[in-house]
Amino acid sequence: MARTVDLVADLGEGFGAYTMGDDEALLELLTSANVACGFHAGDPRIMDATVRTCVARQVAVGAHPGFPDLAGFGRRAMDLTPEEVRTDVLYQIGALQAFAVAHGTRVRHVAPHGRLGNLVAVRADYAGAVVDAVAALDESLIVLAQDGELADAARARGLRVGIVGIADRAYRGDGTLVPRSEPGAVIHDPDEIARRTLRMVTEGLITGVDGTDVPITCDTVLLHGDTPGALALARRIRAQLLAAGVGIAPLDAVLDGKGARVPSGEGARV
Amino acid sequence: MARTVDLVADLGEGFGAYTMGDDEALLELLTSANVACGFHAGDPRIMDATVRTCVARQVAVGAHPGFPDLAGFGRRAMDLTPEEVRTDVLYQIGALQAFAVAHGTRVRHVAPHGRLGNLVAVRADYAGAVVDAVAALDESLIVLAQDGELADAARARGLRVGIVGIADRAYRGDGTLVPRSEPGAVIHDPDEIARRTLRMVTEGLITGVDGTDVPITCDTVLLHGDTPGALALARRIRAQLLAAGVGIAPLDAVLDGKGARVPSGEGARV
Amino acid sequence: MARTVDLVADLGEGFGAYTMGDDEALLELLTSANVACGFHAGDPRIMDATVRTCVARQVAVGAHPGFPDLAGFGRRAMDLTPEEVRTDVLYQIGALQAFAVAHGTRVRHVAPHGRLGNLVAVRADYAGAVVDAVAALDESLIVLAQDGELADAARARGLRVGIVGIADRAYRGDGTLVPRSEPGAVIHDPDEIARRTLRMVTEGLITGVDGTDVPITCDTVLLHGDTPGALALARRIRAQLLAAGVGIAPLDAVLDGKGARVPSGEGARV
Amino acid sequence: MARTVDLVADLGEGFGAYTMGDDEALLELLTSANVACGFHAGDPRIMDATVRTCVARQVAVGAHPGFPDLAGFGRRAMDLTPEEVRTDVLYQIGALQAFAVAHGTRVRHVAPHGRLGNLVAVRADYAGAVVDAVAALDESLIVLAQDGELADAARARGLRVGIVGIADRAYRGDGTLVPRSEPGAVIHDPDEIARRTLRMVTEGLITGVDGTDVPITCDTVLLHGDTPGALALARRIRAQLLAAGVGIAPLDAVLDGKGARVPSGEGARV
Repeated sequence: MARTVDLVADLGEGFGAYTMGDDEALLELLTSANVACGFHAGDPRIMDATVRTCVARQVAVGAHPGFPDLAGFGRRAMDLTPEEVRTDVLYQIGALQAFAVAHGTRVRHVAPHGRLGNLVAVRADYAGAVVDAVAALDESLIVLAQDGELADAARARGLRVGIVGIADRAYRGDGTLVPRSEPGAVIHDPDEIARRTLRMVTEGLITGVDGTDVPITCDTVLLHGDTPGALALARRIRAQLLAAGVGIAPLDAVLDGKGARVPSGEGARV
Repeated sequence: MARTVDLVADLGEGFGAYTMGDDEALLELLTSANVACGFHAGDPRIMDATVRTCVARQVAVGAHPGFPDLAGFGRRAMDLTPEEVRTDVLYQIGALQAFAVAHGTRVRHVAPHGRLGNLVAVRADYAGAVVDAVAALDESLIVLAQDGELADAARARGLRVGIVGIADRAYRGDGTLVPRSEPGAVIHDPDEIARRTLRMVTEGLITGVDGTDVPITCDTVLLHGDTPGALALARRIRAQLLAAGVGIAPLDAVLDGKGARVPSGEGARV
Repeated sequence: MARTVDLVADLGEGFGAYTMGDDEALLELLTSANVACGFHAGDPRIMDATVRTCVARQVAVGAHPGFPDLAGFGRRAMDLTPEEVRTDVLYQIGALQAFAVAHGTRVRHVAPHGRLGNLVAVRADYAGAVVDAVAALDESLIVLAQDGELADAARARGLRVGIVGIADRAYRGDGTLVPRSEPGAVIHDPDEIARRTLRMVTEGLITGVDGTDVPITCDTVLLHGDTPGALALARRIRAQLLAAGVGIAPLDAVLDGKGARVPSGEGARV
Repeated sequence: MARTVDLVADLGEGFGAYTMGDDEALLELLTSANVACGFHAGDPRIMDATVRTCVARQVAVGAHPGFPDLAGFGRRAMDLTPEEVRTDVLYQIGALQAFAVAHGTRVRHVAPHGRLGNLVAVRADYAGAVVDAVAALDESLIVLAQDGELADAARARGLRVGIVGIADRAYRGDGTLVPRSEPGAVIHDPDEIARRTLRMVTEGLITGVDGTDVPITCDTVLLHGDTPGALALARRIRAQLLAAGVGIAPLDAVLDGKGARVPSGEGARV
């Protein structure tokens, strides 16, 4: 089974004099980037430089909106109303769009960050708020999400959805993630993560916490670059996918390819 | 001499639980609005509501980017590099554009706020930075400025420029404003302000600090609404212009009209 | 039964160019003030001016720490760790203490603001965090709270506690407040609020939502000044208390008086 | 000539998820620390942890107030009024004091950061504002400064002043620093910096930009730890000073020693 997958990572998460991760090294591996938009991380200089580099390396630019909490890096839940989520997300996508346009491209996808990303997977009101923002702005934007409320709401609105495979997280039998607060939620062994990534992409299966095979979608693989170990693992995953004959392409192409293959009987989920 | 002029004011300058000015009352008088973009004032909810109301009342939406200094309301100079000015301005216009698009319109002009607005009139590097941001984003955006460096740089780049007439400020013989730090820089008498506005618009003249007539351009009149007195004066100015046969129209139309009249010999400046 | 009560209100809740409430008018009525510390509202200029005026009018200065969320005015819950609550509260009390010292006084009490204030009444971990901050800083500080977790934790640590009576809120039979989300939680009729205040202070009773008399403590009455109506009601409440022979004195004196009266058999709670 | 000198560095300059420099390694070398107070860098968690470690290692805690500009790391001038400088500095010292008190110590000195630090050396109004803040708070606080307006104003107010020697900066013949904007302002060669430090401390002399010996005071040596090279140089400078028989002691002791030695004829300045 020939597959094509996108490789994505969070980029531009520094702020002012502060740096976060090794964006330069990561960029060599990616086809898409979730670019911080200034609320949980990122500032206009960093956004400008990140988008410029993405364009130079033909990496698709995506917005990575988060809660307005720089001190908490967007990892602390804030009790926003859906209306506040909608307007905060609109603001952040728009700000990034300015840099995209200035560098001759467009924002291609939207991937909520951190705690907001967790909440939109389980809260229908927040998911609806994000979809409202995206649809009002540009119906060609892809919503990047795990399976859950946001993915469902986006599909219901007719938006394209890219499902992120997160190989270093444990999955339940229903295809949802084991919450970080539970033991075993995060997988640390690089060998296991690499193995899980490959299987997730090539077979559409991942070993669930109960040991059974769980069918999952993986349109894009989330890579990390915040430690030397993470970067080495990211390189290894990429090489392994290529060695297995997997095509690596931007999300647009991955989703277009899926659409084309649907009639050939690959299944409803894909 | 038949004239057409735009009426503009700063709007959406509240923040969170805080309000500033009487936007509702002002909106009835305007054809354009300078909408705060979240750096010196404004937040995503306020921007959303302000743009929605502008659209409902057919008031053209303009971006009002400022220094990133909420505590100082953008009135304190910050020693930014031109590159910081360029990227801060891009970010702010982009953020507002998202709300404009969501409400079915587009940002039509850009008017730097407060101290940044003062500095772009006299600093060529800052003026160039703003023009770089505007031109990279959308060459159909109008730059709203006083006569000075920003207006010159925008024209040199081929951008359309709308010159703001500020009837409550004293002008020098060369058409520039007397700085606020000098005595007599601000005119407080409503009768005088109303009279100066009318003459500025209908005759293209204002009485300079030295008592001579100074020729000035006035594509748009800046109104205020932050006090009951200011609002009453704004109403009076509008009524007076109409009574004098002056057309009131959005900046786009004012500038288009000027362009059309150039062959008829109205002069080089117009 | 002769009683003495403190009158307190939230003050200094503007920010930068923004104002909130009529502090000047309120200050004539108060014996204590909850002064915003810059996280949910307030800035160094406003804190300085507010403390200066409090000192001039012999109003005791208290800290009013809130969540670090200016855009939400501290009214949106943030999922902080107790350690984050402790350190945010320490920071804010310390900042206000600087202005107190500069004006020849000291911070006398601590009253968590808004959503943080709600949460410390029901979350033992947050209550403990606030008590840790207060006790580490100054054991003579009074903790101002409703009955609940914070009051309990403060007493357990040997800190003095001042219980706030909130006459415009409905009480349950156990002396806790009906949450704002439930119908009837807020009482709007000025006559009823005035009547409830008087009874709360002079009889130690309030009519609960179920119609029965609920015994409550009221060391200080929370007044509001954010609308002309609120200010008029605050004036009326003060006059009514004085007319009923109630003494009005700072919290320190109120609590000292209570201590002295314990032997006379007024009961353990008072 | 036996000398004693303090060793100081800027600490706690991370923010939220962001780190800056290797505070742990630096702390082993220091007798004093300039602790960021949350305006240009630092947050309540970082301030708490930094003060705790300082206390554990007997490093004296100093406040390092800066401009309210996290995005610019306090390195961009802001056109604040002296009143804004005074209140911003009060706020920041107070906030740090809370952590000092919570950990059983007190803030011992105040050292303005970055661009504010540059400006107080040359602007008498800003220098006066800082001195007003310090004197209003605690007259036993030491003002840490270069020679210039702040040092003069502090002495005139009767405050103790510790002069910082900055061995990696070029000095003019009058003992002031060559501004960073001029060529040669910063010295990069570790050998030269080490040599200059030793001479500055033991002889009270530094080679000026014109090649002549310039007499300078050095109560404390500013070390850096933001790069591996800087840290190695800091260790070397410390070892070199000890090898030369220089005593290393907190600023309090250094200044007390100077005071005691004044009668022995060393001169008023030293």
